[in-house]
Amino acid sequence: MNKSSSLLLVLPLLFVAESSFSQSADPQMVMTKSIIKQALVNGKSYNDLGELCANGPRLTGSDGAEKAANWGKAKMESYGFDRVFLQPVTVPKWVRGKNDQVSIVEKGKKPVSLSMCSLGLSPGTPKSGLSAEVIEVHSLKEVDSLGFRVKGKIVFYNRAFDESLVNTMACYGGAADQRSAGPSAAGKYGAAGVLVRSMTNRLDDVPHTGMVHYIDSIPKIPAAAISTKAAELLSQKLKTNPKLTISMKMDCRNEAAVVSHNVIGEIRGSEFPDEIILVGGHLDSWDLAQGAHDDGAGVVQSIEVLRLLKSLNYKPKRTLRAVLFMSEEVGGIGGKEYARQAELNHENHISANESDRGGFTPRGHSIELSDSLVEKYKTWKKYFEPIYADMIIRGGGGVDISFLKKFGTHMMGYVPDSQRYFDVHHASTDTFESVNKRELELGAAAMTIMTYLIDQNGRF
Amino acid sequence: MNKSSSLLLVLPLLFVAESSFSQSADPQMVMTKSIIKQALVNGKSYNDLGELCANGPRLTGSDGAEKAANWGKAKMESYGFDRVFLQPVTVPKWVRGKNDQVSIVEKGKKPVSLSMCSLGLSPGTPKSGLSAEVIEVHSLKEVDSLGFRVKGKIVFYNRAFDESLVNTMACYGGAADQRSAGPSAAGKYGAAGVLVRSMTNRLDDVPHTGMVHYIDSIPKIPAAAISTKAAELLSQKLKTNPKLTISMKMDCRNEAAVVSHNVIGEIRGSEFPDEIILVGGHLDSWDLAQGAHDDGAGVVQSIEVLRLLKSLNYKPKRTLRAVLFMSEEVGGIGGKEYARQAELNHENHISANESDRGGFTPRGHSIELSDSLVEKYKTWKKYFEPIYADMIIRGGGGVDISFLKKFGTHMMGYVPDSQRYFDVHHASTDTFESVNKRELELGAAAMTIMTYLIDQNGRF
Repeated sequence: MNKSSSLLLVLPLLFVAESSFSQSADPQMVMTKSIIKQALVNGKSYNDLGELCANGPRLTGSDGAEKAANWGKAKMESYGFDRVFLQPVTVPKWVRGKNDQVSIVEKGKKPVSLSMCSLGLSPGTPKSGLSAEVIEVHSLKEVDSLGFRVKGKIVFYNRAFDESLVNTMACYGGAADQRSAGPSAAGKYGAAGVLVRSMTNRLDDVPHTGMVHYIDSIPKIPAAAISTKAAELLSQKLKTNPKLTISMKMDCRNEAAVVSHNVIGEIRGSEFPDEIILVGGHLDSWDLAQGAHDDGAGVVQSIEVLRLLKSLNYKPKRTLRAVLFMSEEVGGIGGKEYARQAELNHENHISANESDRGGFTPRGHSIELSDSLVEKYKTWKKYFEPIYADMIIRGGGGVDISFLKKFGTHMMGYVPDSQRYFDVHHASTDTFESVNKRELELGAAAMTIMTYLIDQNGRF
Repeated sequence: MNKSSSLLLVLPLLFVAESSFSQSADPQMVMTKSIIKQALVNGKSYNDLGELCANGPRLTGSDGAEKAANWGKAKMESYGFDRVFLQPVTVPKWVRGKNDQVSIVEKGKKPVSLSMCSLGLSPGTPKSGLSAEVIEVHSLKEVDSLGFRVKGKIVFYNRAFDESLVNTMACYGGAADQRSAGPSAAGKYGAAGVLVRSMTNRLDDVPHTGMVHYIDSIPKIPAAAISTKAAELLSQKLKTNPKLTISMKMDCRNEAAVVSHNVIGEIRGSEFPDEIILVGGHLDSWDLAQGAHDDGAGVVQSIEVLRLLKSLNYKPKRTLRAVLFMSEEVGGIGGKEYARQAELNHENHISANESDRGGFTPRGHSIELSDSLVEKYKTWKKYFEPIYADMIIRGGGGVDISFLKKFGTHMMGYVPDSQRYFDVHHASTDTFESVNKRELELGAAAMTIMTYLIDQNGRF
């Protein structure tokens, strides 16, 4: 596109898209406009994310996670929130070892190393490794029908994402049981180990980790993800040589639980201080990268909601609270503990809005309420239109806030575009460089507008 | 985000978002659904883009551009379109030299080299280079008020994008006159050369090129873009040393015009073959990278519109035509020639839809018609909702198709999300790797749905 094209395209577009920015009699629209400008021109979320990511990964129970909690506390204090504190949470500690490898072994051939990573909570293999024949399957049901024929073998779950689905969250939702429930489903019948095709829309050499939900009554067997290209290769080789063996060597391990922290910052409400409007994301990440999208984005956007409103000299009627949850990736422990404390303290969370779907360009919010209530929130669509974030649909909030549901809290999730999320999710590619500054800032603006509207009007 | 979160988020989302995919009595919705699935599951656009990009840059008048034209012809022939042909176009040939450098020179200090690139159509400097004092300005108006005080100097245009604007096309539209008109505005008063701050939202070291509109009656002076970081550095240094000099050495040059080609492929209509529905993008790119977003995306999406419909055994009522225009970046020459031939051949283009804003996630279409006509097209919004591409607004079409406007053609532009476009626009970062497969495919689906609806119903 060249210069003339730009003018041609922009002038009419401007007329339409940016006209929402013009003078308006609606004071809520005026404030919306100020929030957007402040986020784009003087936003701090991108810089904050750079700082958070520079500290490295934040795996639950690790020093990095604790360092991040202290960073979050110091950051919110530096922004002058009314109260900032750490909330202790006892979390599991899983450690990836130095030895993390999977190879295809065929008689008379050099072993072929596969791009892999151990899955969260997986035990290691025996020190000498684990070698066994492989059975490729595409569902947990298939394992059930194979039954004890998987005994002593490595079960290879190779069901790809259903690419016909438009929302990649749905692609993931349709495949992730292989990773989370697959190891116990195979362990039940005496399988020796599990390999899982990585949860991604991409065909590449990047493995994606994630937590395994091991069932306590079933032997916990070693489990690893292999890249989608490795999965294709293994599947192809199995067609010509079903007797090939896989060698797994992993020295990951589960250590004793440790005390970690949620981080909470708040600005007290002037009229209804007991009505809490929560925004949040989770501080912990996986260990393979910086967790910039998952969920560094949610962390800095949540802090930014309060900071933006404060920087605009806005005095909230209700109490605004940013919560950085610990251990979402491993058991949702921080969210559970937060809800437990909220109950003990008789706190009233009128709404909770979680950002945990990446720092991508905004689409809107999903709201975990009845259709009729969602319709009411849709009357606010116009305030989100200037940033193209006016999708308001019925849908989930987020894991961390899900434990507040029993209190009747209105649960919401910030919804960015989903297309690129599983390119980076739980993988080494989830770096600061993969986040676009303006996309991140517009997400913070969307959450701030929602927070502002609830504060002004109360929830529906 | 972990597994449980996914299920929590996805199930209600699925219910809403993917329910548009369920059985429907509306045959147009059924076809829409087929188009989307076909684009995501069996799409060829991403693979095609990989091929196109592998051939290297496609600067107007270069061998690369001509190679791309032949690739486009062969590709459309391989898809079995009814008619594929090259349309000769005489285009300018500008060549970047090997010597392309700008340095800050201060007495007693080592020269500081700046990240830069010559601008399209710029003449070179004298072989020995060009050294002069610098005047920093922020608008063409400022140059006018300085008048002959810029004589013999290098004018440095340093007005940044207005980041408060949500649509980055508007940011660009508000700054690009410095690059396109700045050199003649300064040349008019005898300036020796021009430096322009790169047209991007990012603060980085990547220079962005683009065409200069030199006015023939004014001396054509050498002009280069410097990266935004270089612009910040130069501006800062000028504050302490306004007498510093800039040394420019550029051996770019304008050569004799050459014959190049538009590429046209079509599927003949069965009922109204004389009514042409055009989809298009431009084949030429800048020379610093592969032009994957600008406008490789538009090229492969346009081809894909026809291919998708053909692969679904759809027999169009009207004639569908994919046009790959040459020399959009340098004068819009291919578009002009295409319109001239259309007039000579008495062709009736009922609509034209251009993709030239990158291969990013879809937002919708902008339509260059009256409000009342745009309102009519909005009745089709539901067909774009399943891919979140239902924004239908009044706005520009595209440069290449703009020359058809005089025939009363309904002009449209495919609108992807704009946030990342100027990260890569006209720069070395515009590579195949910067394009996401599914975002590209969804764009092709959006254009295909629009094409299908016009073919079925005629234009409004």
